[in-house]
Amino acid sequence: MLVYAGDGVLVPMSRIEQIYFHAAQLFVEKGFAVASMSDIAEAVGITKAATYHFVPNKEELLFNLMNFGLDILEDDVVKPASTIEDPAGRLTLIVKNHLLNVGRMKTETGNPFTIFLDEPGGLSPKYREAIDARKRTYFEFVRESIIALRDAGHTHDVDPSVATFSLLGMIIWMSRWAGRRNRMSLDQIADEMTGIALRGILKPAVVPTPYH
Amino acid sequence: MLVYAGDGVLVPMSRIEQIYFHAAQLFVEKGFAVASMSDIAEAVGITKAATYHFVPNKEELLFNLMNFGLDILEDDVVKPASTIEDPAGRLTLIVKNHLLNVGRMKTETGNPFTIFLDEPGGLSPKYREAIDARKRTYFEFVRESIIALRDAGHTHDVDPSVATFSLLGMIIWMSRWAGRRNRMSLDQIADEMTGIALRGILKPAVVPTPYH
Repeated sequence: MLVYAGDGVLVPMSRIEQIYFHAAQLFVEKGFAVASMSDIAEAVGITKAATYHFVPNKEELLFNLMNFGLDILEDDVVKPASTIEDPAGRLTLIVKNHLLNVGRMKTETGNPFTIFLDEPGGLSPKYREAIDARKRTYFEFVRESIIALRDAGHTHDVDPSVATFSLLGMIIWMSRWAGRRNRMSLDQIADEMTGIALRGILKPAVVPTPYH
Repeated sequence: MLVYAGDGVLVPMSRIEQIYFHAAQLFVEKGFAVASMSDIAEAVGITKAATYHFVPNKEELLFNLMNFGLDILEDDVVKPASTIEDPAGRLTLIVKNHLLNVGRMKTETGNPFTIFLDEPGGLSPKYREAIDARKRTYFEFVRESIIALRDAGHTHDVDPSVATFSLLGMIIWMSRWAGRRNRMSLDQIADEMTGIALRGILKPAVVPTPYH
Protein backbone atom coordinates (compact mmCIF):
# COMPACT_ATOMS: atom_id res chain seq x y z
CA MET A 1 0.00 0.00 0.00
CA LEU A 2 1.55 3.29 -1.16
CA VAL A 3 0.80 6.82 -0.03
CA TYR A 4 1.58 10.18 -1.66
CA ALA A 5 4.40 11.92 0.22
CA GLY A 6 4.45 15.17 -1.80
CA ASP A 7 6.38 16.21 -4.94
CA GLY A 8 5.03 13.23 -6.87
CA VAL A 9 6.67 10.72 -4.50
CA LEU A 10 4.84 7.59 -3.28
CA VAL A 11 6.13 5.80 -0.17
CA PRO A 12 4.99 2.58 1.53
CA MET A 13 2.66 2.93 4.52
CA SER A 14 3.88 1.80 7.93
CA ARG A 15 1.91 -0.97 9.67
CA ILE A 16 0.13 1.49 11.97
CA GLU A 17 -0.75 3.70 8.98
CA GLN A 18 -2.17 0.61 7.25
CA ILE A 19 -4.31 -0.13 10.30
CA TYR A 20 -5.57 3.47 10.45
CA PHE A 21 -6.23 3.53 6.73
CA HIS A 22 -8.21 0.28 6.56
CA ALA A 23 -10.05 1.10 9.79
CA ALA A 24 -11.12 4.48 8.42
CA GLN A 25 -12.19 2.90 5.15
CA LEU A 26 -14.26 0.23 6.94
CA PHE A 27 -15.81 2.84 9.24
CA VAL A 28 -16.87 4.82 6.16
CA GLU A 29 -18.23 1.80 4.31
CA LYS A 30 -19.89 -0.18 7.11
CA GLY A 31 -20.30 2.47 9.80
CA PHE A 32 -18.27 2.69 13.01
CA ALA A 33 -20.77 0.61 15.00
CA VAL A 34 -20.76 -2.27 12.50
CA ALA A 35 -17.09 -2.55 11.47
CA SER A 36 -15.28 -4.89 13.91
CA MET A 37 -11.65 -5.25 14.95
CA SER A 38 -11.71 -8.60 13.10
CA ASP A 39 -12.79 -6.84 9.87
CA ILE A 40 -9.91 -4.41 10.29
CA ALA A 41 -7.35 -7.16 10.97
CA GLU A 42 -8.56 -9.05 7.90
CA ALA A 43 -8.33 -5.96 5.66
CA VAL A 44 -4.76 -5.26 6.83
CA GLY A 45 -3.85 -8.95 6.46
CA ILE A 46 -2.76 -9.56 10.08
CA THR A 47 -4.30 -11.51 12.96
CA LYS A 48 -6.75 -9.87 15.34
CA ALA A 49 -4.22 -10.46 18.16
CA ALA A 50 -1.57 -8.55 16.19
CA THR A 51 -4.01 -5.64 15.78
CA TYR A 52 -4.29 -5.35 19.57
CA HIS A 53 -0.52 -4.96 19.70
CA PHE A 54 -1.01 -1.58 18.01
CA VAL A 55 -4.39 -0.41 19.34
CA PRO A 56 -6.17 -1.28 22.61
CA ASN A 57 -9.79 -1.04 21.37
CA LYS A 58 -12.02 0.34 18.65
CA GLU A 59 -12.78 3.69 20.26
CA GLU A 60 -9.11 4.46 20.88
CA LEU A 61 -8.36 3.36 17.35
CA LEU A 62 -10.88 5.91 16.09
CA PHE A 63 -9.44 8.64 18.31
CA ASN A 64 -5.88 7.78 17.25
CA LEU A 65 -6.65 7.74 13.56
CA MET A 66 -8.43 11.09 13.77
CA ASN A 67 -5.39 12.53 15.55
CA PHE A 68 -3.16 10.94 12.94
CA GLY A 69 -5.18 12.65 10.17
CA LEU A 70 -4.88 15.99 11.99
CA ASP A 71 -1.13 15.45 12.55
CA ILE A 72 -0.60 15.01 8.80
CA LEU A 73 -2.70 18.12 8.14
CA GLU A 74 -0.44 20.11 10.47
CA ASP A 75 2.68 18.78 8.78
CA ASP A 76 1.34 19.38 5.28
CA VAL A 77 -0.33 22.75 5.81
CA VAL A 78 0.17 24.53 9.13
CA LYS A 79 3.95 24.13 9.47
CA PRO A 80 4.92 25.34 5.98
CA ALA A 81 2.22 28.07 5.96
CA SER A 82 3.35 29.46 9.32
CA THR A 83 6.68 30.48 7.79
CA ILE A 84 5.01 32.73 5.17
CA GLU A 85 4.53 36.35 6.27
CA ASP A 86 2.52 37.62 3.31
CA PRO A 87 -1.13 36.63 3.97
CA ALA A 88 -2.00 36.16 0.26
CA GLY A 89 0.93 33.80 -0.20
CA ARG A 90 0.04 32.05 3.06
CA LEU A 91 -3.60 31.55 2.05
CA THR A 92 -2.48 30.23 -1.35
CA LEU A 93 -0.24 27.66 0.30
CA ILE A 94 -2.95 26.70 2.81
CA VAL A 95 -5.51 26.00 0.08
CA LYS A 96 -3.13 24.20 -2.29
CA ASN A 97 -1.47 22.07 0.40
CA HIS A 98 -4.75 21.19 2.10
CA LEU A 99 -6.06 19.97 -1.27
CA LEU A 100 -2.91 17.87 -1.77
CA ASN A 101 -3.35 16.58 1.79
CA VAL A 102 -6.90 15.44 1.05
CA GLY A 103 -5.79 13.87 -2.24
CA ARG A 104 -2.74 12.10 -0.86
CA MET A 105 -4.66 8.99 0.20
CA LYS A 106 -7.53 7.73 -1.82
CA THR A 107 -9.82 4.78 -2.40
CA GLU A 108 -12.75 4.41 -4.79
CA THR A 109 -14.89 5.99 -2.12
CA GLY A 110 -12.49 8.85 -1.42
CA ASN A 111 -10.05 9.67 1.38
CA PRO A 112 -11.39 7.83 4.44
CA PHE A 113 -9.45 9.99 6.92
CA THR A 114 -10.98 13.20 5.69
CA ILE A 115 -14.45 11.67 5.43
CA PHE A 116 -14.29 10.14 8.88
CA LEU A 117 -12.99 13.28 10.54
CA ASP A 118 -16.48 14.75 10.30
CA GLU A 119 -18.42 11.75 11.55
CA PRO A 120 -20.05 12.72 14.83
CA GLY A 121 -20.63 9.18 16.16
CA GLY A 122 -18.26 6.77 17.89
CA LEU A 123 -16.24 9.08 20.16
CA SER A 124 -16.96 9.58 23.87
CA PRO A 125 -17.46 13.26 24.85
CA LYS A 126 -13.91 13.65 26.23
CA TYR A 127 -12.31 12.40 23.02
CA ARG A 128 -14.73 14.31 20.84
CA GLU A 129 -13.92 17.56 22.65
CA ALA A 130 -10.20 17.02 22.02
CA ILE A 131 -10.76 16.44 18.30
CA ASP A 132 -13.16 19.39 18.01
CA ALA A 133 -10.59 21.64 19.72
CA ARG A 134 -7.94 20.68 17.17
CA LYS A 135 -10.37 21.32 14.30
CA ARG A 136 -11.25 24.74 15.74
CA THR A 137 -7.55 25.62 16.00
CA TYR A 138 -7.11 24.79 12.33
CA PHE A 139 -10.22 26.75 11.35
CA GLU A 140 -8.86 29.81 13.22
CA PHE A 141 -5.50 29.41 11.51
CA VAL A 142 -7.16 29.66 8.08
CA ARG A 143 -9.53 32.42 9.18
CA GLU A 144 -6.70 34.60 10.50
CA SER A 145 -5.12 34.84 7.05
CA ILE A 146 -8.46 35.89 5.59
CA ILE A 147 -8.95 38.49 8.35
CA ALA A 148 -5.48 39.91 7.64
CA LEU A 149 -6.36 40.15 3.94
CA ARG A 150 -9.72 41.77 4.69
CA ASP A 151 -8.11 44.31 7.05
CA ALA A 152 -5.71 45.23 4.25
CA GLY A 153 -8.69 45.80 1.91
CA HIS A 154 -7.69 42.83 -0.25
CA THR A 155 -10.89 40.74 -0.07
CA HIS A 156 -14.31 41.08 -1.61
CA ASP A 157 -17.05 41.91 0.89
CA VAL A 158 -17.30 38.54 2.67
CA ASP A 159 -17.50 37.54 6.31
CA PRO A 160 -14.18 35.83 7.20
CA SER A 161 -15.95 32.88 8.85
CA VAL A 162 -18.25 32.32 5.88
CA ALA A 163 -15.23 32.58 3.56
CA THR A 164 -13.27 30.06 5.67
CA PHE A 165 -16.17 27.59 5.78
CA SER A 166 -16.63 27.98 2.00
CA LEU A 167 -12.98 27.23 1.23
CA LEU A 168 -12.83 24.33 3.68
CA GLY A 169 -16.05 22.86 2.27
CA MET A 170 -14.67 22.90 -1.26
CA ILE A 171 -11.41 21.35 -0.04
CA ILE A 172 -12.84 18.71 2.29
CA TRP A 173 -15.48 17.68 -0.25
CA MET A 174 -12.68 16.77 -2.66
CA SER A 175 -12.19 13.72 -0.44
CA ARG A 176 -15.41 12.34 -1.98
CA TRP A 177 -14.59 12.66 -5.66
CA ALA A 178 -10.90 13.17 -6.49
CA GLY A 179 -10.30 9.40 -6.44
CA ARG A 180 -12.62 9.03 -9.41
CA ARG A 181 -10.93 11.72 -11.59
CA ASN A 182 -7.95 9.91 -13.03
CA ARG A 183 -7.77 11.93 -16.25
CA MET A 184 -6.19 14.91 -14.45
CA SER A 185 -3.29 14.76 -12.01
CA LEU A 186 -3.87 15.62 -8.38
CA ASP A 187 -1.57 18.61 -8.83
CA GLN A 188 -3.63 19.93 -11.76
CA ILE A 189 -6.90 19.51 -9.85
CA ALA A 190 -5.45 21.21 -6.76
CA ASP A 191 -4.15 24.10 -8.88
CA GLU A 192 -7.50 24.70 -10.58
CA MET A 193 -9.33 24.59 -7.26
CA THR A 194 -6.80 26.91 -5.62
CA GLY A 195 -7.59 29.40 -8.39
CA ILE A 196 -11.35 29.08 -7.82
CA ALA A 197 -10.90 29.59 -4.06
CA LEU A 198 -8.55 32.59 -4.29
CA ARG A 199 -10.53 34.42 -6.98
CA GLY A 200 -13.73 33.88 -5.02
CA ILE A 201 -12.33 35.67 -1.97
CA LEU A 202 -9.55 38.03 -3.09
CA LYS A 203 -9.80 41.14 -5.26
CA PRO A 204 -8.34 40.45 -8.73
CA ALA A 205 -5.20 42.57 -8.20
CA VAL A 206 -4.24 40.53 -5.11
CA VAL A 207 -4.72 37.03 -6.58
CA PRO A 208 -1.20 35.58 -6.97
CA THR A 209 0.08 35.26 -10.52
CA PRO A 210 -0.67 31.76 -11.79
CA TYR A 211 -4.20 31.90 -10.36
CA HIS A 212 -5.68 35.16 -11.63
CA MET B 1 -41.49 21.63 13.93
CA LEU B 2 -41.18 24.38 11.30
CA VAL B 3 -39.37 24.31 7.98
CA TYR B 4 -38.20 27.17 5.73
CA ALA B 5 -40.42 27.36 2.65
CA GLY B 6 -38.55 30.19 0.84
CA ASP B 7 -38.96 33.99 0.99
CA GLY B 8 -38.54 34.02 4.76
CA VAL B 9 -41.65 31.87 5.32
CA LEU B 10 -41.70 29.01 7.84
CA VAL B 11 -44.38 26.30 7.53
CA PRO B 12 -45.19 23.30 9.73
CA MET B 13 -43.81 19.93 8.62
CA SER B 14 -46.23 17.17 7.63
CA ARG B 15 -46.13 13.96 9.65
CA ILE B 16 -44.16 12.12 6.95
CA GLU B 17 -41.68 15.02 6.75
CA GLN B 18 -41.28 14.82 10.53
CA ILE B 19 -40.52 11.12 10.28
CA TYR B 20 -37.97 11.70 7.50
CA PHE B 21 -36.39 14.57 9.38
CA HIS B 22 -35.98 12.78 12.71
CA ALA B 23 -34.89 9.56 10.98
CA ALA B 24 -32.17 11.43 9.05
CA GLN B 25 -31.06 13.20 12.22
CA LEU B 26 -30.84 9.91 14.16
CA PHE B 27 -28.99 8.22 11.28
CA VAL B 28 -26.44 11.06 11.34
CA GLU B 29 -26.03 11.00 15.11
CA LYS B 30 -26.14 7.27 15.88
CA GLY B 31 -25.37 5.74 12.49
CA PHE B 32 -27.90 3.96 10.26
CA ALA B 33 -27.10 0.53 11.72
CA VAL B 34 -27.66 1.63 15.32
CA ALA B 35 -30.71 3.93 15.09
CA SER B 36 -33.91 1.86 15.43
CA MET B 37 -37.49 2.37 14.30
CA SER B 38 -38.35 2.76 18.01
CA ASP B 39 -35.83 5.63 18.34
CA ILE B 40 -37.43 7.31 15.34
CA ALA B 41 -40.99 6.86 16.66
CA GLU B 42 -39.91 8.29 20.01
CA ALA B 43 -38.26 11.32 18.42
CA VAL B 44 -41.37 12.06 16.36
CA GLY B 45 -43.60 11.49 19.39
CA ILE B 46 -45.76 8.70 17.89
CA THR B 47 -45.99 4.96 18.57
CA LYS B 48 -43.79 2.50 16.72
CA ALA B 49 -46.96 0.99 15.19
CA ALA B 50 -47.97 4.39 13.84
CA THR B 51 -44.53 4.73 12.23
CA TYR B 52 -45.13 1.53 10.25
CA HIS B 53 -48.30 3.12 8.88
CA PHE B 54 -46.02 5.52 6.97
CA VAL B 55 -42.92 3.38 6.23
CA PRO B 56 -42.58 -0.40 5.87
CA ASN B 57 -39.02 -0.80 7.21
CA LYS B 58 -35.79 1.04 7.94
CA GLU B 59 -34.16 0.51 4.54
CA GLU B 60 -37.19 1.79 2.65
CA LEU B 61 -37.38 4.70 5.05
CA LEU B 62 -33.79 5.58 4.17
CA PHE B 63 -34.49 5.26 0.44
CA ASN B 64 -37.66 7.34 0.73
CA LEU B 65 -36.05 10.10 2.73
CA MET B 66 -33.17 10.34 0.25
CA ASN B 67 -35.66 10.61 -2.59
CA PHE B 68 -37.60 13.18 -0.59
CA GLY B 69 -34.40 15.25 -0.20
CA LEU B 70 -33.74 15.00 -3.95
CA ASP B 71 -37.37 15.91 -4.73
CA ILE B 72 -37.04 19.13 -2.73
CA LEU B 73 -33.74 19.88 -4.50
CA GLU B 74 -35.49 19.56 -7.85
CA ASP B 75 -38.32 21.82 -6.75
CA ASP B 76 -35.98 24.41 -5.24
CA VAL B 77 -33.26 24.43 -7.89
CA VAL B 78 -33.81 22.45 -11.10
CA LYS B 79 -37.36 23.60 -11.90
CA PRO B 80 -36.79 27.37 -11.53
CA ALA B 81 -33.29 27.20 -13.09
CA SER B 82 -34.56 25.32 -16.16
CA THR B 83 -36.63 28.35 -17.16
CA ILE B 84 -33.57 30.63 -17.38
CA GLU B 85 -31.92 30.74 -20.81
CA ASP B 86 -28.86 32.83 -19.96
CA PRO B 87 -26.27 30.41 -18.49
CA ALA B 88 -24.74 33.00 -16.11
CA GLY B 89 -28.17 33.79 -14.69
CA ARG B 90 -28.96 30.08 -14.52
CA LEU B 91 -25.74 29.24 -12.66
CA THR B 92 -26.37 32.10 -10.23
CA LEU B 93 -29.84 30.78 -9.44
CA ILE B 94 -28.54 27.20 -9.11
CA VAL B 95 -25.89 28.19 -6.56
CA LYS B 96 -28.09 30.56 -4.55
CA ASN B 97 -31.13 28.26 -4.46
CA HIS B 98 -29.09 25.16 -3.67
CA LEU B 99 -27.58 27.03 -0.71
CA LEU B 100 -31.07 28.03 0.47
CA ASN B 101 -32.16 24.41 -0.01
CA VAL B 102 -29.36 23.17 2.22
CA GLY B 103 -30.10 25.85 4.81
CA ARG B 104 -33.88 25.36 4.85
CA MET B 105 -33.76 22.59 7.46
CA LYS B 106 -31.28 22.67 10.25
CA THR B 107 -30.37 21.19 13.59
CA GLU B 108 -27.36 21.83 15.81
CA THR B 109 -25.52 19.23 13.76
CA GLY B 110 -26.60 20.64 10.41
CA ASN B 111 -29.11 19.59 7.75
CA PRO B 112 -29.50 15.82 8.20
CA PHE B 113 -30.95 15.29 4.71
CA THR B 114 -27.94 16.79 2.98
CA ILE B 115 -25.50 15.03 5.30
CA PHE B 116 -27.18 11.67 4.92
CA LEU B 117 -27.42 11.90 1.14
CA ASP B 118 -23.71 11.15 0.94
CA GLU B 119 -23.60 8.26 3.37
CA PRO B 120 -22.61 5.16 1.44
CA GLY B 121 -23.96 2.59 3.93
CA GLY B 122 -27.48 1.29 4.51
CA LEU B 123 -28.87 1.02 0.98
CA SER B 124 -29.00 -2.22 -1.02
CA PRO B 125 -27.28 -1.99 -4.45
CA LYS B 126 -30.56 -1.53 -6.36
CA TYR B 127 -31.65 1.41 -4.21
CA ARG B 128 -28.18 2.89 -4.14
CA GLU B 129 -27.99 2.81 -7.93
CA ALA B 130 -31.30 4.69 -8.16
CA ILE B 131 -30.07 7.40 -5.76
CA ASP B 132 -26.69 7.65 -7.48
CA ALA B 133 -28.42 8.06 -10.86
CA ARG B 134 -30.47 10.98 -9.54
CA LYS B 135 -27.34 12.60 -8.09
CA ARG B 136 -25.51 12.20 -11.42
CA THR B 137 -28.43 13.83 -13.25
CA TYR B 138 -28.20 16.81 -10.93
CA PHE B 139 -24.42 17.00 -11.29
CA GLU B 140 -24.81 17.06 -15.10
CA PHE B 141 -27.47 19.77 -14.84
CA VAL B 142 -25.02 22.04 -12.99
CA ARG B 143 -22.09 21.07 -15.21
CA GLU B 144 -23.98 21.89 -18.42
CA SER B 145 -24.36 25.53 -17.39
CA ILE B 146 -20.63 25.72 -16.71
CA ILE B 147 -19.83 24.10 -20.08
CA ALA B 148 -22.08 26.64 -21.84
CA LEU B 149 -20.24 29.46 -20.07
CA ARG B 150 -16.84 27.99 -20.90
CA ASP B 151 -17.78 27.55 -24.56
CA ALA B 152 -18.77 31.23 -24.65
CA GLY B 153 -15.32 32.14 -23.23
CA HIS B 154 -16.85 33.35 -19.98
CA THR B 155 -15.01 31.15 -17.47
CA HIS B 156 -11.49 31.11 -16.14
CA ASP B 157 -9.40 28.15 -17.30
CA VAL B 158 -11.06 25.39 -15.24
CA ASP B 159 -12.26 21.91 -16.08
CA PRO B 160 -16.11 21.96 -15.93
CA SER B 161 -16.23 18.82 -13.77
CA VAL B 162 -13.67 20.16 -11.29
CA ALA B 163 -15.59 23.46 -11.20
CA THR B 164 -18.90 21.64 -10.59
CA PHE B 165 -17.45 19.50 -7.81
CA SER B 166 -15.89 22.61 -6.23
CA LEU B 167 -19.18 24.52 -6.19
CA LEU B 168 -21.16 21.53 -4.94
CA GLY B 169 -18.60 20.87 -2.20
CA MET B 170 -18.87 24.42 -0.92
CA ILE B 171 -22.67 24.22 -1.06
CA ILE B 172 -23.14 20.76 0.44
CA TRP B 173 -20.61 21.43 3.21
CA MET B 174 -22.79 24.32 4.38
CA SER B 175 -25.07 21.61 5.77
CA ARG B 176 -22.45 21.08 8.51
CA TRP B 177 -22.05 24.63 9.75
CA ALA B 178 -24.84 27.05 8.77
CA GLY B 179 -26.95 25.98 11.77
CA ARG B 180 -24.28 27.37 14.08
CA ARG B 181 -24.06 30.82 12.40
CA ASN B 182 -27.03 32.66 13.82
CA ARG B 183 -25.50 36.12 13.61
CA MET B 184 -26.12 36.29 9.85
CA SER B 185 -29.35 35.42 8.06
CA LEU B 186 -29.44 32.42 5.77
CA ASP B 187 -30.07 34.78 2.86
CA GLN B 188 -26.96 36.84 3.67
CA ILE B 189 -24.80 33.73 3.98
CA ALA B 190 -26.16 32.32 0.71
CA ASP B 191 -25.51 35.64 -1.06
CA GLU B 192 -21.90 35.87 0.11
CA MET B 193 -21.24 32.29 -0.89
CA THR B 194 -22.89 32.75 -4.29
CA GLY B 195 -20.44 35.61 -4.85
CA ILE B 196 -17.45 33.44 -3.87
CA ALA B 197 -18.61 30.65 -6.20
CA LEU B 198 -19.34 32.85 -9.23
CA ARG B 199 -16.15 34.93 -8.98
CA GLY B 200 -14.10 31.75 -8.62
CA ILE B 201 -15.38 30.39 -11.93
CA LEU B 202 -16.51 33.31 -14.11
CA LYS B 203 -14.42 36.10 -15.62
CA PRO B 204 -15.07 39.39 -13.77
CA ALA B 205 -17.06 40.98 -16.63
CA VAL B 206 -19.55 38.09 -16.64
CA VAL B 207 -20.21 37.91 -12.88
CA PRO B 208 -23.79 39.22 -12.39
CA THR B 209 -24.10 42.64 -10.78
CA PRO B 210 -24.56 42.19 -7.02
CA TYR B 211 -21.82 39.56 -6.90
CA HIS B 212 -18.83 41.12 -8.65
